Amino acid sequence: MKCLKCENKAVFEIRRHRAAFCKEHYILHIQNQVAKAIKKFRMFPPKTKLLIAISGGKDSLALWDILLDLGYNVHGLYIDLGIDEYSKRSKEKSIDFKESRQATLHTISLEKIYGIGIGNISKKTSRKFCSICGIIKRYIMNKTALLGDYYAVITGHNLDDEAAALFGNLMGWQVDYLRRQHPNMPPKKGFARKVKPLCRLGEREMAAYCVLKNIDYIIEECPMSKGASSITYKEALNTLEAKSPGIKDHFYLGFLRGGQEYFKDTKDEKEDEEAELNPCEFCHQPTYAAGKCNFCKQMEKANIDPLKIHDEIKSKVTT
Amino acid sequence: MKCLKCENKAVFEIRRHRAAFCKEHYILHIQNQVAKAIKKFRMFPPKTKLLIAISGGKDSLALWDILLDLGYNVHGLYIDLGIDEYSKRSKEKSIDFKESRQATLHTISLEKIYGIGIGNISKKTSRKFCSICGIIKRYIMNKTALLGDYYAVITGHNLDDEAAALFGNLMGWQVDYLRRQHPNMPPKKGFARKVKPLCRLGEREMAAYCVLKNIDYIIEECPMSKGASSITYKEALNTLEAKSPGIKDHFYLGFLRGGQEYFKDTKDEKEDEEAELNPCEFCHQPTYAAGKCNFCKQMEKANIDPLKIHDEIKSKVTT
Repeated sequence: MKCLKCENKAVFEIRRHRAAFCKEHYILHIQNQVAKAIKKFRMFPPKTKLLIAISGGKDSLALWDILLDLGYNVHGLYIDLGIDEYSKRSKEKSIDFKESRQATLHTISLEKIYGIGIGNISKKTSRKFCSICGIIKRYIMNKTALLGDYYAVITGHNLDDEAAALFGNLMGWQVDYLRRQHPNMPPKKGFARKVKPLCRLGEREMAAYCVLKNIDYIIEECPMSKGASSITYKEALNTLEAKSPGIKDHFYLGFLRGGQEYFKDTKDEKEDEEAELNPCEFCHQPTYAAGKCNFCKQMEKANIDPLKIHDEIKSKVTT
Repeated sequence: MKCLKCENKAVFEIRRHRAAFCKEHYILHIQNQVAKAIKKFRMFPPKTKLLIAISGGKDSLALWDILLDLGYNVHGLYIDLGIDEYSKRSKEKSIDFKESRQATLHTISLEKIYGIGIGNISKKTSRKFCSICGIIKRYIMNKTALLGDYYAVITGHNLDDEAAALFGNLMGWQVDYLRRQHPNMPPKKGFARKVKPLCRLGEREMAAYCVLKNIDYIIEECPMSKGASSITYKEALNTLEAKSPGIKDHFYLGFLRGGQEYFKDTKDEKEDEEAELNPCEFCHQPTYAAGKCNFCKQMEKANIDPLKIHDEIKSKVTT
């Protein structure tokens, strides 16, 4: 197979595009795809200060690499959840990458702040692991973006993640989630903008990018995610993709281009929604809940002072 | 495992209901489910004359059996498509069943009317096999229902079929199909009512019903359906169902209970739609197309006189 651009020997084929590229043009292709997504979904302007959530996996490290290459001012945020070896190794990969690129990486450690990791917090709150982990990560990402005055929080969700989430939301007819799922979630009262520049690039494509760019990432998935329903949705979509290359992208893009419109709020509902946000009586972050926000409620169950995290983040982003 | 109803030894387990039944109560359970679907979706009143499309497979024969047991006046319609051994064997099974139940079965043979089977028609029209087969079958079913003064056309589409169709329509964001997909499609100008009483019973459940009732059906699928996308959608959903029993039913029911509402036409659009139907200039069946209906257009491509089928059906249903 030959490279679509230069006719040199291709190193990677993208079946759904019926295209193959040499190393150099593959890297350029992926970087162009990211640049296009940023532009198309009006994610952020060039000179802004950006925050990217780093897990040490292929997607977040590749995306950080691409954004730095594209010239963005983007700082990393690594949340050390305290999942034994997995956290240790993923932290190492994140720090190695940061050093190789001389970039800024904030690390927030749950164990350092609270004395316990996510496993024990999950037990104490009686919440499923992935559920409590999501609540804590979203809270920390948002808080860091606000306290550090970042224009947006960037995450490495790829096409497989987004298509699986969409599929899951449709299977359960979760209309609230269907309304909200978008690669560019604008900011609202107390919430930073959230963007997903990899939303149209597949898992395999990101892994290939890391290999070709010599980015050393943690290959294994989080050991706590075994049996997660998102994995089953991904498998089901992969069955379809193998048969009809491109169907996943078509599905997700069809949703963004028109499908989602059917689930949209009316203008009045949108205004009502924002009006319903009230400050959490504890940490003051806006919440739809009465009284405390969900993060503070969960921390209370785990006998943890939620405000400690505020001070820790503040000390990180202002030094 | 014991029967949920009588504590005798169970012969079949329905995982998604966490229930198992003895032979007698399993048969009753399935028949009750069909009776419930007929009532819930207001498919047809008790004393009406009904037409069921019979393929010789498990779903249509089981459903015919159930409806006869429930006391309905239901005639079968077998369309002999001329697919070599498959058609021969499926026709035999249909006739054997009809005789065992002393029921009425109309058989319409494409080869008898047109001199050629569906394979050659597909070639001559340059349409994909499943596409032309669907056009012809729907036309014959509808025509038979109208000429024979049947209250509704009943088909054996089961939960797996309906969930796979829904999944496919969502993957492609085919909003027109999403609007129309329903187990009870009311009649409109020139089109008979179409109903699917098995819409919430799974494939495995229908196969078990046939085994327990000694209904001899053709086990193999249509040889021309190999590689059909509906099969891939079924496989993908089965991956999910194995992990979360009941998810398929939940998905389909969620669509009927609320999801579909989001795709619905406004009242004005509905009226417009009906107003756009005009009689085919050849066979006079209403069509949205200008001039000839799709069936007549396809028959013309295959050098076939579409009206022959009208006379054949008339001779069958009025004798």
